[in-house]
Amino acid sequence: MLSFDKNIGLYTDHYELTMAQGYFLSNRHQTQACFDYFYRKNPFHGGFVVSSGLSSVLELIQNFQFDSDACDYLLSVGFNKQFVNYLSHFSFRGSIHAVREGEIIFPYEPILRVEGNILETQLVETLLLNLLNFESLIATKAARMRLAAGDRLLLEFGLRRAQGLGGIHATKAAISGGFDKTSNVFGARAFGVESSGTMAHSWIQSFGDELTAFRTYADYFPENCILLVDTYDTLKSGIPNAITVARELGQKGHQLLGIRLDSGDLTYLSKQARKMLNASGLPEVKIVASNQLDETIIQSLLSQGAPIDVFGVGTSLVTGKEDAALDGVYKLSDYDGQPSIKVSENIGKMTLPGIKTLHRYIDSNNLFYADGISFQDEKIYEMIHHPIESDKHRIISNYRKETLMQEVMKNGQTVVELKSPHEVAAYTKSRLQQLPEEHKRFLNPHVYKVGISDKLLKVRNELAKHYLRKDPF
Amino acid sequence: MLSFDKNIGLYTDHYELTMAQGYFLSNRHQTQACFDYFYRKNPFHGGFVVSSGLSSVLELIQNFQFDSDACDYLLSVGFNKQFVNYLSHFSFRGSIHAVREGEIIFPYEPILRVEGNILETQLVETLLLNLLNFESLIATKAARMRLAAGDRLLLEFGLRRAQGLGGIHATKAAISGGFDKTSNVFGARAFGVESSGTMAHSWIQSFGDELTAFRTYADYFPENCILLVDTYDTLKSGIPNAITVARELGQKGHQLLGIRLDSGDLTYLSKQARKMLNASGLPEVKIVASNQLDETIIQSLLSQGAPIDVFGVGTSLVTGKEDAALDGVYKLSDYDGQPSIKVSENIGKMTLPGIKTLHRYIDSNNLFYADGISFQDEKIYEMIHHPIESDKHRIISNYRKETLMQEVMKNGQTVVELKSPHEVAAYTKSRLQQLPEEHKRFLNPHVYKVGISDKLLKVRNELAKHYLRKDPF
Repeated sequence: MLSFDKNIGLYTDHYELTMAQGYFLSNRHQTQACFDYFYRKNPFHGGFVVSSGLSSVLELIQNFQFDSDACDYLLSVGFNKQFVNYLSHFSFRGSIHAVREGEIIFPYEPILRVEGNILETQLVETLLLNLLNFESLIATKAARMRLAAGDRLLLEFGLRRAQGLGGIHATKAAISGGFDKTSNVFGARAFGVESSGTMAHSWIQSFGDELTAFRTYADYFPENCILLVDTYDTLKSGIPNAITVARELGQKGHQLLGIRLDSGDLTYLSKQARKMLNASGLPEVKIVASNQLDETIIQSLLSQGAPIDVFGVGTSLVTGKEDAALDGVYKLSDYDGQPSIKVSENIGKMTLPGIKTLHRYIDSNNLFYADGISFQDEKIYEMIHHPIESDKHRIISNYRKETLMQEVMKNGQTVVELKSPHEVAAYTKSRLQQLPEEHKRFLNPHVYKVGISDKLLKVRNELAKHYLRKDPF
Repeated sequence: MLSFDKNIGLYTDHYELTMAQGYFLSNRHQTQACFDYFYRKNPFHGGFVVSSGLSSVLELIQNFQFDSDACDYLLSVGFNKQFVNYLSHFSFRGSIHAVREGEIIFPYEPILRVEGNILETQLVETLLLNLLNFESLIATKAARMRLAAGDRLLLEFGLRRAQGLGGIHATKAAISGGFDKTSNVFGARAFGVESSGTMAHSWIQSFGDELTAFRTYADYFPENCILLVDTYDTLKSGIPNAITVARELGQKGHQLLGIRLDSGDLTYLSKQARKMLNASGLPEVKIVASNQLDETIIQSLLSQGAPIDVFGVGTSLVTGKEDAALDGVYKLSDYDGQPSIKVSENIGKMTLPGIKTLHRYIDSNNLFYADGISFQDEKIYEMIHHPIESDKHRIISNYRKETLMQEVMKNGQTVVELKSPHEVAAYTKSRLQQLPEEHKRFLNPHVYKVGISDKLLKVRNELAKHYLRKDPF
């Protein structure tokens, strides 16, 4: 049913194709353009986003083509014959600059910019937004759970509640954000991750009695046995039976890996379970908890002293739950060598013109101080301005400067090594250590400073004035 | 990257495979079992769900196999050789009964049941949950928007904010729930739906002046021209320029199809736009509105008299936004001819045992009165009981009875015709007309009556008593 190796070109919004046809027929399709990808609002009431999805974009954009079936379809729904013929030879030959996958990013920053002719840069919009918005959302959610869980093991369990095939990229992004393993076998194989899982309630139900169910499982998986203890009664049946099986395993030279709690009051049950296991001489048996977890529940459980070693998270991780989409957009910033702007009655929706880049300023403690957006060709700027309240500014010349964007695709060819999700996770972790605590807290995080250069401010204001026919600020 | 025609078997949770291996090695894999799919809570604070995803399940389950690459992978991660050999010849040969796609369903009802051997019925769990949960969620959201929008045109615009490839099934489900068209070209082609779309702000920006941008578009798409009017200033620039182009189109014998408002106060702007268009002799030009819409905003806009003809909806439709997952589960109800139950300290999480079916009772106005769950082989029952407060009951013998479940797959072969999304939508529409208004309202909908037969109540209570060692009720 799904065959995604070819015809990725059709994975797009209809209007990308009508516009492309318009550019082609008006013979403007070779004109150079630049688009920026950025988002406006941090999800989860948080203070940051973890950039993710770049490797997916680079991989799929190289297959963004239209085979003869796709072309026949486009003809059948009324697209122009010359244009469809052009598409039949189309491949993306533009260039992309982007921040590293796993970078910590903030609202309004150009995370990625695409340069090339207007037709190709326009056509890839939907694919790029779809992947970057979703993977960044989930990597961010995962990173928040990692912040809450410390060094405890985190397992992604979400495939059954994922949004259809979105479960595949959810797994990838969960690992990028800091999860250790996944239940998703397809995703594990695709992304080089370890999959894990033991039993559902149905396994236990099928035996009628719990002890036999546990024993049978332990017989077949003596080295990797985690027993689900809440099918009938956690404290009166599940844990006592698990202890029996742990002792039997011990006599055969094996060790019960853990028990899993999947319902009830996880704080109370984990404390009781720990006591019962320890009293039976089984302090090494881990406690795994699952059931509607998210970062605030993990934080709450641990602050109450729940002795949980491993968290399994599903729905809220793979969907984002209360924030199910990152609001990332893709806006034209330069056309035919001229900076371009979309003005708006809503000042916050105005875009930043021109071919831009992004720098980070690092303080003497190696922590992030502020980010600056400037034109790509600006050599040095001394201060950054708040993009809206432009009398607010900061001097940044005393801070160490990092260049965040690098060229990742040149003339249609990927020029960086694609990172695995675990490699991205290592970078995410190191960067989160450089982000001051006040931006990481879950409740009312402090807003990170992002400003624009003098020159960018000036060009933006001139363009806004031109289109609004009044001074916008 | 994605090739989904084969290896669907790997699109599963790891624990399905460990359990399957356990059943296989303990030589219990041929034992007959039955699983129910049901959900517990209506999403969106609503009063119903639209069942969707059945055709996806039937299509993919037939390809639920493991090719040699998949088998090699499973061996490499430690699965048993004899078991993997069994999987290499595996295909699903069980039977499925389900409600019709598009049926209106309620919490705790068995929507679908899978019968076969324990190994095959267990293995398909994740795939089935993934598809049914997501498509039902989105079809429900779409149906709510359809209820709000009346007969106005509804366009699905969500691919860029969809959860990765989840956008594909989101499009299908949006149409099943009542949307007319989609922006998603891949989805349109896959599901036989019309795609639509015209231009983004970038088209207009690329021309520098709006009037030229509109004129050029109208030149190439004179029959299908909707102009986006908010790039610079909706009332002072966008609409006046659109009126100019509409007149020029008129002189050439064409008609401007519409204008699109994508920001600002949609009520105010649509009223002003309508006045300006009418005053220019253009009452036939439609007004399309988009920008963060959902069913309550559509309802609010229309109640304020906003003269909007077409709504384009993205994020909240394709993700569900505040409720990003339906909580559907798949529970063992019968094993080796014996009814099975999962008890719980939380009484609402107890499952219903046995091989069951679902009936609907229709009143003399042809409206839904109540639904009854009973064993499949019960001929007649006179009353239904509230599953938890079992002294609450209703006599249903005076109502017309409909059998909601039908056999859709027999011994691994689909035995019904798969419905297209538009066919599902027609059924959804007719069934929503039979659902009393009080269950359809968005604020505090009345709870629909779902009860269980005497016999089912008795068996459930006996099993619960056995496992809890006390009377649960």
